[in-house]
Amino acid sequence: MNMLTHSAYGMSIIATGTFEQTVERVNVVFKEHGFGALSEIDVQAALREKIAEEIEPYTILGMCNPHLASRALKAEYEIGMLLPCNVLVHECGGVVHVGAQDPMLMMDMARKENLRPIAEEAKRLIEQALAEVSVL
Amino acid sequence: MNMLTHSAYGMSIIATGTFEQTVERVNVVFKEHGFGALSEIDVQAALREKIAEEIEPYTILGMCNPHLASRALKAEYEIGMLLPCNVLVHECGGVVHVGAQDPMLMMDMARKENLRPIAEEAKRLIEQALAEVSVL
Repeated sequence: MNMLTHSAYGMSIIATGTFEQTVERVNVVFKEHGFGALSEIDVQAALREKIAEEIEPYTILGMCNPHLASRALKAEYEIGMLLPCNVLVHECGGVVHVGAQDPMLMMDMARKENLRPIAEEAKRLIEQALAEVSVL
Repeated sequence: MNMLTHSAYGMSIIATGTFEQTVERVNVVFKEHGFGALSEIDVQAALREKIAEEIEPYTILGMCNPHLASRALKAEYEIGMLLPCNVLVHECGGVVHVGAQDPMLMMDMARKENLRPIAEEAKRLIEQALAEVSVL
């Protein structure tokens, strides 16, 4: 099993499939944990189109667990500024990485203690999903 | 002119138009400041569809300034976990609010000093845009 690496603002794994396989697998596995991608941003295509710059495949998925989102909105109505939870799939020198922003940090930013249990649950689910994405 | 209000994680204004007019105006004004919406998440529709819950109009726009995004990626390649910059348009008791997450806080989370000038420029542009959104 692939190790989950924690950075200052998220956690990530290295995927074993191709970039396209990994994006698909992330969608499937996160769905099993209650998340749906409400947005999918192809940053590679955007930079190519807008400023003619080439980067490796780089996609940001806006993942939302509607039950957790609903609870978060009840705790803090403007929390949408910090939602949904980004899951980044990108390729770097042929290696595919999957990273998710840490919901605890986002909630720390909001400085609302009543968001803590919601963020903790989101983090637990995201870590489970990432661990499963890494097992092909 | 409408006052810009700062919260723990963002800045917001109260809009004078309807919800739909405001979403359109946000897109136009932010474009004038170099941002394009790479995603538009209708949270009201998502919660209705997924968990049959009703909330007031609530849309999250994923705003991206491609020049700043490109510089941010060069400074920190995994910063996509914290991009794009969310702009939230929501209605609350008939009042339309527009809020944007504070790019400085996002960059603080990444703990990378070389992101600071990029975040400062993003914040300056976003504050200008928000001030203009409020003037109909």
